[in-house]
Amino acid sequence: MHKKLFIPGPTEVRDDILQAQAKPMIGHRSKEFSALYEGIVNKIKQALNTKNYVIVFTSSGTGIMEGAIRNCVYKDVLCCVNGAFSDRWFKIAKACGKNADAITVEWGKAIKPEMIEEKLKQKKYDAVTLVHNESSTGVRAPLEEIAEVMKKYPDTFWLVDTVSSLMGDKIEIDKLGIDVCLASVQKCFALPPGLAVCTVTERALERTRTITDRGYYFDFDAMLKRYEKDRQTPTTPAVTLMYALDKQMDKILAEGMENRYKRHLEMAKYVREWAKKYFALFPEPGYESVTLTCVDNTRKITVADLNSELGKRGFQISNGYGDLKEKTFRIAHMGDLTLDEIKELIDNINDILKL
Amino acid sequence: MHKKLFIPGPTEVRDDILQAQAKPMIGHRSKEFSALYEGIVNKIKQALNTKNYVIVFTSSGTGIMEGAIRNCVYKDVLCCVNGAFSDRWFKIAKACGKNADAITVEWGKAIKPEMIEEKLKQKKYDAVTLVHNESSTGVRAPLEEIAEVMKKYPDTFWLVDTVSSLMGDKIEIDKLGIDVCLASVQKCFALPPGLAVCTVTERALERTRTITDRGYYFDFDAMLKRYEKDRQTPTTPAVTLMYALDKQMDKILAEGMENRYKRHLEMAKYVREWAKKYFALFPEPGYESVTLTCVDNTRKITVADLNSELGKRGFQISNGYGDLKEKTFRIAHMGDLTLDEIKELIDNINDILKL
Repeated sequence: MHKKLFIPGPTEVRDDILQAQAKPMIGHRSKEFSALYEGIVNKIKQALNTKNYVIVFTSSGTGIMEGAIRNCVYKDVLCCVNGAFSDRWFKIAKACGKNADAITVEWGKAIKPEMIEEKLKQKKYDAVTLVHNESSTGVRAPLEEIAEVMKKYPDTFWLVDTVSSLMGDKIEIDKLGIDVCLASVQKCFALPPGLAVCTVTERALERTRTITDRGYYFDFDAMLKRYEKDRQTPTTPAVTLMYALDKQMDKILAEGMENRYKRHLEMAKYVREWAKKYFALFPEPGYESVTLTCVDNTRKITVADLNSELGKRGFQISNGYGDLKEKTFRIAHMGDLTLDEIKELIDNINDILKL
Repeated sequence: MHKKLFIPGPTEVRDDILQAQAKPMIGHRSKEFSALYEGIVNKIKQALNTKNYVIVFTSSGTGIMEGAIRNCVYKDVLCCVNGAFSDRWFKIAKACGKNADAITVEWGKAIKPEMIEEKLKQKKYDAVTLVHNESSTGVRAPLEEIAEVMKKYPDTFWLVDTVSSLMGDKIEIDKLGIDVCLASVQKCFALPPGLAVCTVTERALERTRTITDRGYYFDFDAMLKRYEKDRQTPTTPAVTLMYALDKQMDKILAEGMENRYKRHLEMAKYVREWAKKYFALFPEPGYESVTLTCVDNTRKITVADLNSELGKRGFQISNGYGDLKEKTFRIAHMGDLTLDEIKELIDNINDILKL
């Protein structure tokens, strides 16, 4: 029996989208492919309301995180670390041979704008990295307030991982001034994994061109030059995943972005209310994610047992991440999931836990 | 109308394999995924008759080329360049900040073992890069003879791109002593693009661990450590493409590797005989690819017109690569294509060209 996925990625993918992958193969040097890719890029720009460049890579979101570091950081980068994925930025920067400093706060807490400002006052950084929606803790970063700080330091670029929020939580990329905003498609896009998407500002692209050892596969400039030439990609892309992405962008635009954001918020509110009634919320108050809820396991239930019982009924949620494995559990409400599906899940949890 | 692909990747993918992608999504941190990935790794090892490590990356083959450079080259690398894809090794090495020297021969010619030996005598290199099957020219490298040279220089690792030959042309990886042997799945594996596969020797893995700025996404050590731990991948893999890869490995093993290699050779011989009768072969004699034939366009036909006519009949071949666009054309006979399908294609070409 298929278990419907309420985990923070991969999320549940609808049958018509899964089927879209099964269309016959086309060459990636064909006019058909150029039309496919151009359509995808334009639909993503429209959905995100951005004038920045859009690139689709065949990789997970982590690949673009590495690309963003290589393309935008000469030497010094400041990483905001409050969970597993924000710590990944720091590890990637080190693995790319960069000088990485970290602002580290306890898991479950948010990075505040003043913490970033304090560091930027002391030292010139090429870029600041941030995770908008920390899937490991359910913490949502205060983008608007941080943007105000970033605007005071125009030589410091802003690289934001919106892996588990983009297309589900409204992010005004251009207004905020995010230089590289990246996401994986298996989260709020509700697609099978294997593609990652980013937006890139003109100034980020210009800097990219001045860094000669920026690597090859995740080279923003090469991707955009090829797109400019013939709407293709320098290396072979995952064509069947692009069929699915194209169809899903049509469905996302048909739903309407405001409706999509509203649906995510409604699901989040429902799960949060339930969590507050029977457990507690793990994130610092006021910084709760809109796309997943990290529940503080105050009743000390055995999460593995709950998930095992849910599995028999066709549902799957997620245990806590890493050290939080039993201390928390996570319910994702992202992608194409509906409030009715969330209610059905919660009813089943209540039934199993006799709440 | 779908055009059956006789291009050097993506190659034709069978319907049951396309459909295999459409199975419902599973989490990549589940036992189901671990079983899927372990099965794939073991089947690839069996098919390739290798005791080396096997890694599957979510990327094109180019991604692993970059990974091989970052994981195995401290500083100096020798690149054998005789076409577009072997030149890509050189470009990647430069883009990764390495000192890359090239042995360059005219497109259509093979790199000879003595050319490599001459360079290795003069300077100590961390690695030599080679393309086994140059898709741009249809030239096949003499792996056995080159292996004899490589064995004399044990500190120099051997990185071989078998992107368009692995699983179609027999390559005795362990016997030859190839340190990193990499391929994309949209060629002789006959799968949709988006995954790339490599084998890695123990000594290559050991060197990887000594290079601290080897990057993150294509880190061989991290991939293998995670595999060792729980048969999973550090970053989210393309799960639906892995469904297809798993099913296709079953089909490949059911055909039998010797049968598969024999079928490729039969198709190659048929196309070569036809090409020699009406045109000429582009590659240097004795170095013709087994998986695609690059035809010297001695009759000066307009390749675009031929392909357009073939398209109306449901077939697609490939023009020449880059500067060879009209000077050559390419017919791929790789993956799951059969001799009967090749004969049908050739009959149609004969009919269109009135040969």
